[in-house]
Amino acid sequence: MPELRKDPIVGRWVIIAHERAKRPDDFRSTPSASNEPKVCPFCEGHEELTPPEILAYRDFGSRPNGPGWRLRVVPNRFPALKIEGNLNKRGDGIYDMMAGIGAHEVIIESPRHEISMATLPEDNIREVLWVYRDRLVDLKKDNRLVYGMLFKNVREGGGASLEHTHSQLIVTPIVPISVWEEMTGSLEFYNYRGRCIYCDMNQQELAVEKRVVLDSTHFTAFCPYASRFPFETWIVPKNHASHFENIPKPGVDDLGHVLHQVLNKLELALDNPSYNYIIHTAPFDQPELPHYHWHIEVIPRLTRIAGFEWGSGFYINPVPPEHAAAFLREIEVNAPSPIYAGPHRPASARTPAERGRA
Amino acid sequence: MPELRKDPIVGRWVIIAHERAKRPDDFRSTPSASNEPKVCPFCEGHEELTPPEILAYRDFGSRPNGPGWRLRVVPNRFPALKIEGNLNKRGDGIYDMMAGIGAHEVIIESPRHEISMATLPEDNIREVLWVYRDRLVDLKKDNRLVYGMLFKNVREGGGASLEHTHSQLIVTPIVPISVWEEMTGSLEFYNYRGRCIYCDMNQQELAVEKRVVLDSTHFTAFCPYASRFPFETWIVPKNHASHFENIPKPGVDDLGHVLHQVLNKLELALDNPSYNYIIHTAPFDQPELPHYHWHIEVIPRLTRIAGFEWGSGFYINPVPPEHAAAFLREIEVNAPSPIYAGPHRPASARTPAERGRA
Repeated sequence: MPELRKDPIVGRWVIIAHERAKRPDDFRSTPSASNEPKVCPFCEGHEELTPPEILAYRDFGSRPNGPGWRLRVVPNRFPALKIEGNLNKRGDGIYDMMAGIGAHEVIIESPRHEISMATLPEDNIREVLWVYRDRLVDLKKDNRLVYGMLFKNVREGGGASLEHTHSQLIVTPIVPISVWEEMTGSLEFYNYRGRCIYCDMNQQELAVEKRVVLDSTHFTAFCPYASRFPFETWIVPKNHASHFENIPKPGVDDLGHVLHQVLNKLELALDNPSYNYIIHTAPFDQPELPHYHWHIEVIPRLTRIAGFEWGSGFYINPVPPEHAAAFLREIEVNAPSPIYAGPHRPASARTPAERGRA
Repeated sequence: MPELRKDPIVGRWVIIAHERAKRPDDFRSTPSASNEPKVCPFCEGHEELTPPEILAYRDFGSRPNGPGWRLRVVPNRFPALKIEGNLNKRGDGIYDMMAGIGAHEVIIESPRHEISMATLPEDNIREVLWVYRDRLVDLKKDNRLVYGMLFKNVREGGGASLEHTHSQLIVTPIVPISVWEEMTGSLEFYNYRGRCIYCDMNQQELAVEKRVVLDSTHFTAFCPYASRFPFETWIVPKNHASHFENIPKPGVDDLGHVLHQVLNKLELALDNPSYNYIIHTAPFDQPELPHYHWHIEVIPRLTRIAGFEWGSGFYINPVPPEHAAAFLREIEVNAPSPIYAGPHRPASARTPAERGRA
């Protein structure tokens, strides 16, 4: 059983993953893409290589754990946290710990191996966003759990262990420290100014323009003023909302477009970089909050994190966000790609949006 | 001029290093060791390839910026922060910024290219510790500056851009957020319990033993209870002290031995891993503090940081610290290596400690 342990100084929790346990020898060879299995467990037709699916968006008439899906959610085969058991919070001398209860799921975004999130048509990206939403709504019902972190690791430098396009969801029984810091910081601003800091940022970015990458109906994409990383890009809803899972349908429609544009701009600007994106959203147990504002942070992994960053929490960014945004703004992403409907998908299974376009 | 910018939500500062500015093309090729210059600027005899030295421990009769040194401190050729100018703190709409004033120095720990920190004899490690101390004491006099972060990046995965053994010192005009979090957390504990949390940790670790790597006269080395990384090892003084630069001579004598042991244990256990170490110490402008305790964190870089860690501040560690410590404890580091005195160093220039041993 994994354990959650708390650092008694800064209050950071770590997951000690006994069952992923490694011996020193496991670290002796440099990890590389050659660890990739010969047969991809995420490809259509190999459904038996993953644990049984939790949810799938499937073509009419197809069966669970068989072909005919567009999107598939499965438990992580090597989960950082486990769903069974109780938290058993306890002390260990001066330290605090609890059982590693939680969920660790994988969202396979396409049945086809050669597709990437950037080459996925906008409507399929919208389905990815819907599946993110559906999983959060479902997991929120478990009152042992308080936070769902949705993230994507792309390419080796982004920490992806499998090439086939996928996101992950880790659901934890405590609020992660980084989220807690954002909540605390934005609450302080709200108490002082009576406004949401993210709404203020949106307003200033749209007014000064120089850090804006994309200005869409419902979202602003910009390189933040204090970007930690070159080409760091945030996608922030224009209307205040603290919980991603409450996103309205027109929001998903627009976000599919914005995410497609932003990822393709980064792919083109940086020649297929490693990157991560993370959805920052409010904890499950919070009502709609006036001070917190959900958003997506996209982080290309171009620079190395070394001793200074680990020790200080300071980042050295060699690319001013104004330069990065100007560069990304100019990049033309090709006209909408044709809608990919999956090899087994009859026309009758298309979404209304797709039928409207065809 | 570099700029310091503050994230308005969490209060984290970043350095926007205009003069290290990179264009998108600079990120297109994967960085690799082939960026290493053909002629090493840190080797003895190549002193003209670095900016003029700030300080050196030299053999009697040798001249500044020429051969005959054991340790040399030079400005970083591509400094993240600059020493000239004034802070010019100001607002930029809703944001806060100041000029990137500070210092960025390189400590070259040996004139010889093939030496590493682990193969450096204990007495030379002691000189490295003295030079760390001397630089902090000197830079503290500049009242624009409040924090000095000493760190070491080893091998490519640790972020080292040059192979020749060296440490770095970055001195900032504000307290780094990670240090501030440690100070705040330990103050809270002190206010509640009336004791230093690090002293409590030391006591518990020595009592339960299972996470102890080394128990020496003045220092405990242990794998912390909530280790973020496999084989993460902290070296903590047994006597309470908040400022590294006030370390007494017997402390330096012992720490040379402890650091030598710990680094060699890690080198042997993990087959020459990439790693960082960082000296965590109190800010310049603070008096001796009853709640904060300086220490060294050694972090082998074996696992990849991916989206989950960036988003959450949660870490997943596949090696329980109890396993790591048991493994490191058992490793025998060879008997003290012969004292390396440098190729140009006459016997008369040896330290009293060396003469005592010879």
